[in-house]
Amino acid sequence: MSDDAFWAEALASAEAEDAADPLREMRARFALPPGVIYLDGNSLGPAPTAALAELDRAARDEWARDLITSWNRAGWFDLPSVCGDLIAPIVGADRGEVVACDTTSLNIFKALHAALGMRPDRGVIVAESAGFPTDLYVAEGVCATRPGASLQLEGRDGPDLIELIDADVAAVLVNQVDYRTGRLRDVAAVTARAHAVGALAVWDLCHSAGVMEVGLNAAGADLAVGCSYKYLNGGPGAPAFVFAARRHQAAIRQPLSGWWGHARPFAFAPEFAPDAGIRKFLCGTQPILSFRAMQAGLAMFAEASLAEIRRKSVALTGRFIALTEATLAPFGVGLLSPGAAAERGSQVSLTHPEGYAVVQAMIARGVIGDFRMPDVMRFGFAPLYVGHADAARAARTLHQVLATEAWAEPRYRARAAVV
Amino acid sequence: MSDDAFWAEALASAEAEDAADPLREMRARFALPPGVIYLDGNSLGPAPTAALAELDRAARDEWARDLITSWNRAGWFDLPSVCGDLIAPIVGADRGEVVACDTTSLNIFKALHAALGMRPDRGVIVAESAGFPTDLYVAEGVCATRPGASLQLEGRDGPDLIELIDADVAAVLVNQVDYRTGRLRDVAAVTARAHAVGALAVWDLCHSAGVMEVGLNAAGADLAVGCSYKYLNGGPGAPAFVFAARRHQAAIRQPLSGWWGHARPFAFAPEFAPDAGIRKFLCGTQPILSFRAMQAGLAMFAEASLAEIRRKSVALTGRFIALTEATLAPFGVGLLSPGAAAERGSQVSLTHPEGYAVVQAMIARGVIGDFRMPDVMRFGFAPLYVGHADAARAARTLHQVLATEAWAEPRYRARAAVV
Repeated sequence: MSDDAFWAEALASAEAEDAADPLREMRARFALPPGVIYLDGNSLGPAPTAALAELDRAARDEWARDLITSWNRAGWFDLPSVCGDLIAPIVGADRGEVVACDTTSLNIFKALHAALGMRPDRGVIVAESAGFPTDLYVAEGVCATRPGASLQLEGRDGPDLIELIDADVAAVLVNQVDYRTGRLRDVAAVTARAHAVGALAVWDLCHSAGVMEVGLNAAGADLAVGCSYKYLNGGPGAPAFVFAARRHQAAIRQPLSGWWGHARPFAFAPEFAPDAGIRKFLCGTQPILSFRAMQAGLAMFAEASLAEIRRKSVALTGRFIALTEATLAPFGVGLLSPGAAAERGSQVSLTHPEGYAVVQAMIARGVIGDFRMPDVMRFGFAPLYVGHADAARAARTLHQVLATEAWAEPRYRARAAVV
Repeated sequence: MSDDAFWAEALASAEAEDAADPLREMRARFALPPGVIYLDGNSLGPAPTAALAELDRAARDEWARDLITSWNRAGWFDLPSVCGDLIAPIVGADRGEVVACDTTSLNIFKALHAALGMRPDRGVIVAESAGFPTDLYVAEGVCATRPGASLQLEGRDGPDLIELIDADVAAVLVNQVDYRTGRLRDVAAVTARAHAVGALAVWDLCHSAGVMEVGLNAAGADLAVGCSYKYLNGGPGAPAFVFAARRHQAAIRQPLSGWWGHARPFAFAPEFAPDAGIRKFLCGTQPILSFRAMQAGLAMFAEASLAEIRRKSVALTGRFIALTEATLAPFGVGLLSPGAAAERGSQVSLTHPEGYAVVQAMIARGVIGDFRMPDVMRFGFAPLYVGHADAARAARTLHQVLATEAWAEPRYRARAAVV
C-alpha cells in the first residue's frame, strides 16, 4: 500500500470514529486557532471561549466598575471554594474536600507538612526520582523545615516505590501520571500499601486531572495536589488545587498560615486559628483575574462524562501509537510511553535524537506538541478538543517531517528557551 | 458662615489646587465609573485602562492564539522579573532586587526564613501586635518550622518595637504604614536599630508602596515584601513582591524551593540549586493573566514622580482632615490617623460608633471608603486618581451623611461580610 493510500485509509477510519464521538461538540467551545491540532494540553490547556468572556466580565464589570464591592457581590472571596467544588467531582472527591489556591509546588509543601504532622513519630517521605522535579525540590524544602524529616527516592534508594514504603514512612508523594513518559501508575495500590504500614499518600494529579476518572475517594486517598492549567484548561499559571479527605481535615495543620486560612479572616484576631475545613490550606489573597478565567473551564467538565473522556483518551493515544508504530520504525523513533492502555495516561511520548527539531517542524505545520530533554517528544491528547482525525493527521505530519527530513532545516534546530 | 458657603469655599480652593496639580492628567488613565470618588485604593486599586487592554491581549493573543509559545515569545516566564524591575524604582530598590510572585503572606514566610537563616544563632522575630494580622499568622507558621524561633510583639511583650530589638533578635517585621490607623513609621530608624544589634529588618510595604518614596536602599533595608493590588493598582489579588538587598542575595536560602526558583529550571535536575539572584524567592508557576493585568499599572509609575505623589498625598489627607475637623466635631467623629503629616501615610482613618452605616451611606452617594471593626472608617487618598476637589467633596458628603443622619436608614446598617 502506498503512503498516500495508507494515510487516506487511516484518516477515513478516524473520521468515522469522530462522527460517532459523544464529545465531538466540545471542540467548538475552545478558542483554538483554525487549523491547529493542539497536542500540548499536558503543558498548557487552550482557552475555553467562556473563559475569555468571564475574564472580560471580571475585569470590566467586577474590577473596573464594581471595584471593592466585588469581594462580596461577585463572590471573589469564595472563589477558592467555588473552584475547589468544581474540581472535586473531576478528581473523585466530595464537596468541601478540594480548595483551589496558590501553586502546585506550594500545595505540595502544605500537603507534605500536613502528612508529617499527622505522623509525628515518623520522618520519611518517599517520592519518585523521576517525578516532576519541583516535587523533589519542594520535598527538600519540607525536610529543611521539619526536624527529622528525610527523603527516600524510587530510582535512587530503591528500584520501586512500593518497596520503599515501610513503617518509618510518614508520607508517599506520587504522581498519578509521569510528566515525561506518560506512564499511569496504580496510585490506589500505592495508597493501599502506604495505609498498610500506617503511612499517608499524597497524590500529584498534574498530568491526570481532567483526562480520566482520578477516583480519590474510591481509592481512600489522604491528600492530593494538582494544577489547573493543563488538562483543566484554567489558563496560563492558573491557581492549583489541594485535596484533603474529610476524615483528616480536623487533624491537619500546615505552616503557611495566612489570613485566608483563618477560621474568621475578617475578625482580624491577633492569633491564628485555622479554618475547620479545607480552607485551612489557604494562605494569602488569591489572584482573582486568573481565578475567574479558570472558573469557566472547570465548569465545562460538568457537561462531560469522565468515563467517556477516558474512553476517548485511550482510543486517541492508541490510534496515534498504532499509526506511528506502523510508519516510523525506519526513522529511529522509539515509544517511551507504555504500549498498554491501562498503563498510559493521556499522553504519548516518543524519542528521537532530533526530537527538538522534529517538534518545531511539526509546530510549523500546525501540529503542536512539545519537547523535553534529551530526546523526548510529548504529545498530549485531550479528549475535549482533540479528535480521532486530529490524531491521525498528527501521526501523518510526524511521518512526513521524518520521511522528508524537514526537521533538518536550521530554523527548526535552533534552540530557544524551552518551557 | 453657612454650611453651603463653607463648602462652596472649600470646593473652590480645592479646585484651584487641582488646576495646578502636575498629576491631574493621570486620573483619565483609570477606568473609574463616572461620578465615583474612590477612596479605597488602600484596599483595592482601580483598573488602569491600559491594564484592561493588556489583559485582553494576554487572554486572546497570547493564551488563546499563541498558546504554549507565549511562555517564550510573550515573555511569560520573565514576568516575575519584569514586574519586579518595574516595582524596584517605586520602592527605592535597584534592578534585580525585587521579584513579583505569590502573595504577601507567602513572601513574608520566605523573607522571615531567609532572615533567620542568615542569623543562625538567634531565634527571635520582633513584630507589631497591631500589624496586619496575616503578618503575625505567618510569623507563627515560621516559628513552627524553624527550631528555636519565637515571636516578640510590640503591644504585648513591650510598648515599643524599638525596645524589643536586642542581640537575641534575628529579624524585625515592621509595617511602614499601619493598615488600620494609617500611621507612617520611621522604618529607617527601626532598621538602623536592628542593624545596631546585628539583626535584620523585613519591611511590609503593603500600605506604602505607590504613595510615597519608600526608599529601601537609602535606608539600608535588608528584606521587604508588599502587595500590588492596593496603591500599585495591579488588580484584585495581583501577585505580591519581595525585595532582598543585593548584598544579601548570595547568602539567602528560603524553604519554599520550587522549580521557578531553581538556577536552571528547565534542566529538570533532580536536586534543587537556587537561582543566584532574587529569583530564588520564586517557587511554582505564576498566574500569568493576573500578572499581565498588573504589568500595565506598574509601568504607569515611570511617568509620575514619587516626590510629587507624596507631596499631593500629604495635601489630600491634610485637606480632608482639616475639613472634617472643622465640621464633624458635633457628630462624635474621632481622628485615628496621626494629625502630623510626617507621621501619616496616604490614608485617613476616622472613628464613629456607626462607622459601618456611615461608610455605606457614603458609598450610596458615590464616595467609596471602607470600614474596619469596631468603628474605623478608612479613606485612602491615592494621588494618581484622587484630586483635591474629590477630597473636599468626600468631606462634604461625610458631613452631610452625619448631619442628616442618613446613615440611620436600615439598608445602611445591615451588615454584609466585610472585606
